[in-house]
Amino acid sequence: MIDRRFFRHAGPTRLSDIASLTAASLSSRSGDAPDGSRTFADVAPLDQAGPQDISFFDNIKYIDAFTQSRAGACFTRARFTSRAPEGMALLVTEEPYTGFALTAQQFYPEPAFEPNIAPQAVIAASAKIGRNSRIDAGAVIGEHVTIGERCHIGANTVIYDHVQIGDDCRIGACCTISHALLGSRITLHRGIHIGQDGFGFAPGRTGILKVPQLGRVLIGDNVEIGSGTTIDRGSGPDTVIGQGSKIDNLVQIGHNVQIGKYVIIAGQCGIAGSTRIDDGVMLGGQVGIGGHVHIGAGAKLAAQSGVMRDIPAGETYSGSPAMPIREWRRQAATMMKLGKKGEASEE
Amino acid sequence: MIDRRFFRHAGPTRLSDIASLTAASLSSRSGDAPDGSRTFADVAPLDQAGPQDISFFDNIKYIDAFTQSRAGACFTRARFTSRAPEGMALLVTEEPYTGFALTAQQFYPEPAFEPNIAPQAVIAASAKIGRNSRIDAGAVIGEHVTIGERCHIGANTVIYDHVQIGDDCRIGACCTISHALLGSRITLHRGIHIGQDGFGFAPGRTGILKVPQLGRVLIGDNVEIGSGTTIDRGSGPDTVIGQGSKIDNLVQIGHNVQIGKYVIIAGQCGIAGSTRIDDGVMLGGQVGIGGHVHIGAGAKLAAQSGVMRDIPAGETYSGSPAMPIREWRRQAATMMKLGKKGEASEE
Amino acid sequence: MIDRRFFRHAGPTRLSDIASLTAASLSSRSGDAPDGSRTFADVAPLDQAGPQDISFFDNIKYIDAFTQSRAGACFTRARFTSRAPEGMALLVTEEPYTGFALTAQQFYPEPAFEPNIAPQAVIAASAKIGRNSRIDAGAVIGEHVTIGERCHIGANTVIYDHVQIGDDCRIGACCTISHALLGSRITLHRGIHIGQDGFGFAPGRTGILKVPQLGRVLIGDNVEIGSGTTIDRGSGPDTVIGQGSKIDNLVQIGHNVQIGKYVIIAGQCGIAGSTRIDDGVMLGGQVGIGGHVHIGAGAKLAAQSGVMRDIPAGETYSGSPAMPIREWRRQAATMMKLGKKGEASEE
Repeated sequence: MIDRRFFRHAGPTRLSDIASLTAASLSSRSGDAPDGSRTFADVAPLDQAGPQDISFFDNIKYIDAFTQSRAGACFTRARFTSRAPEGMALLVTEEPYTGFALTAQQFYPEPAFEPNIAPQAVIAASAKIGRNSRIDAGAVIGEHVTIGERCHIGANTVIYDHVQIGDDCRIGACCTISHALLGSRITLHRGIHIGQDGFGFAPGRTGILKVPQLGRVLIGDNVEIGSGTTIDRGSGPDTVIGQGSKIDNLVQIGHNVQIGKYVIIAGQCGIAGSTRIDDGVMLGGQVGIGGHVHIGAGAKLAAQSGVMRDIPAGETYSGSPAMPIREWRRQAATMMKLGKKGEASEE
Repeated sequence: MIDRRFFRHAGPTRLSDIASLTAASLSSRSGDAPDGSRTFADVAPLDQAGPQDISFFDNIKYIDAFTQSRAGACFTRARFTSRAPEGMALLVTEEPYTGFALTAQQFYPEPAFEPNIAPQAVIAASAKIGRNSRIDAGAVIGEHVTIGERCHIGANTVIYDHVQIGDDCRIGACCTISHALLGSRITLHRGIHIGQDGFGFAPGRTGILKVPQLGRVLIGDNVEIGSGTTIDRGSGPDTVIGQGSKIDNLVQIGHNVQIGKYVIIAGQCGIAGSTRIDDGVMLGGQVGIGGHVHIGAGAKLAAQSGVMRDIPAGETYSGSPAMPIREWRRQAATMMKLGKKGEASEE
Repeated sequence: MIDRRFFRHAGPTRLSDIASLTAASLSSRSGDAPDGSRTFADVAPLDQAGPQDISFFDNIKYIDAFTQSRAGACFTRARFTSRAPEGMALLVTEEPYTGFALTAQQFYPEPAFEPNIAPQAVIAASAKIGRNSRIDAGAVIGEHVTIGERCHIGANTVIYDHVQIGDDCRIGACCTISHALLGSRITLHRGIHIGQDGFGFAPGRTGILKVPQLGRVLIGDNVEIGSGTTIDRGSGPDTVIGQGSKIDNLVQIGHNVQIGKYVIIAGQCGIAGSTRIDDGVMLGGQVGIGGHVHIGAGAKLAAQSGVMRDIPAGETYSGSPAMPIREWRRQAATMMKLGKKGEASEE
């Protein structure tokens, strides 16, 4: 059960409207089309769903949960329809999870906010705030900042002088942003720090000299960034996050890093200075990438990989130092055998 | 020397009262009971303690520090009493460190705070704050929040609408909490972010679709959480932290993770979505656990372990990928030999 | 091009003055001294620099960029002068990057700030703020805090009771500092948490007992600390960061850790309790160091190293568990060969 204190519900929707919304076709185990006028109002996982709920099934690992599910309707692929329980309405699509996500968005739309400038926000006279935006208590907006329309700036967030933010951005509480130009429809969660000095020092005879960090952070449209993540500004070149990229919590991105479009970066990854990550790359959790390397488009790095050299486009790597995942699996298997031999000779 | 500007001292205590408090018996090297009316007022490590201080000894590695210590009194186990210096009062117990901790708590009790609602806090009209609680400057408390009695909410912390917090909780500065129900006697340090969206996306033909995150975060009694840690709310199920668990700094906990009771998680661990960690598990620093795995009760994972599969209850694992620690040690030894052979053949 | 909305420019400087400032000698490919009265106003990387810009070259990997660069002037070493393009003014020095950094500092000096106490800051009556300091909106300064002269405390930062801060410190927004004594000329970026309780618990029959954390954090002069980093106070002894040390983002430093002078710690490192790190040590990103170990002066640890034992002074280690880097490379090579044998026998 979704806790409706926290999530605003939009009311029931007809099954036929859900099918339209998600470009799914209605079917059932028998192949007969279910009643499209039936209404649904909630989503749930297969094992928790009841007759009023819509679920999804797309991973053969969960086939038992599917065949036993009491869900009233379920997104799935055409090839699974014959396994569905009797009486379950099927929403057939090649992207069941996407259908489920769209349905959940329909039932529980992103909460709206009332435009408002909290009296406890501190906004410089020269800052420009677009129409229908909301600035919460304790936010501090610097000189010459521009914020677009329909933006929400969370409580106690600090936007430094001259930062530019596009339309429809949602910035959570306790963030700090400086030296940055942000596009539109960007979501920043909480406690994110963008634009501080990169880690640039010149060690020499007279100690460790600070190298001025003279670049910016550029963030494309539709980017989403998780809580506690830090993104340093460039040292001269800019640090760039391409449109549509999704970055999880507690990620560190060094100066001059260039991240392409639709890149997915899981929690606690660290990317050192001047590294380039091309479109569609996916990084598992806790991956570390050294400075000045290039990750080709569509490459995937398994969790905890350590990368010091370029990774070719489209490849999947694992390990520290990272290697093609097939090779990594073989090494692990070899090691296991050697370990067992060692065990035998111990005895 | 404890810096009493920072720590409030409660005054001296008689040795016999300390023995009672900690269920220790008084003894000495000779076996004669020391003078229980003697008073003590401070704690110190073995090598820094003087005649006015109480110390503890429980690790044979520090035997020299014990035999040479000038501590006036010392918690230790019965089997070590014969190694104590002449004249040292011994507090004999099977849990010397616990005895030491209780004594330190007695001398330096958790600082009390005066109930107060700072005029610079921003509290929604519908929020309910229990008696004798304290809300510091810049804190922002949302609509319909309930906070119990004797709670302390630190400066510039943001509590979002509808959050519930039990009694005797201490929440540090610069935290954010949303979509969460907290028990009692919980300590959150600083800059902790609880309840933001989990990392849920459906990649598809039309880009990367956001999956609404419709669950909550439930935190049990007596939990303590370190600075900079992030805990995402569930995607539909809840994210759960069981009672008495202790989580260190900069830990990332993904959506739907279920953590049992009395689990200990060291700094910078990352736990991916929907993983279940049973009671009494201990994780070393920087451990990474993948999604949808199960860590059995009482299991231990060495620092930097990488876990992609279930770990059986009670076992100790190490390495990335994690394996039983005995096997991991054997592999490391085998590798070292092979490395040396490689060296020989190079020469 | 440097974005002068974000960076204040100090005006052009004569080449001869730059040479004096950096103790470089003026030369050229031909050996003829260039015109010292020529003025420059900007810095740029070799491949982006034009005739108005000063660049630097010190890594043979970038020799092509050097020979083709259009930079008007360039810092380099004497041995590279013969490779310079015609007409490029050379600033010859044994520390080209340091020269470049000093020049960048000259062109873009650290932005000055106007002394000011924001009316929205909350400052305890007993706090002492030195002359010409600046406290931004939403900052909360506790009782008996002392802050030196020419300090800048960022918006929404919280300084707890009795903390002492020297002169010329710059503390970013959303930091929290307690139980700490800071020297002078310290830079803290944003969202840094200093002085919270260390992770000290005594597990026992009656649950997990909190051990009072009775030490402080001492930070030496000229230290710089990155955003999101957490430094726990000592448990009895102090946690110490030696002068001139540089710590990157999202680093975790446990209680009682002692860090020497001029230590460099890259992003996301974790250092467990009571470990000692001597002067001049360098840690790569995501390094994990266990508790109670000793890292000798000048040692280097490669990224993602995992350290459970002492590391001798001056050595370079890599791997998890960490080993001398030569041995680590040999093991990696051996593994690769074994992996390939495994492949052959599969086929």
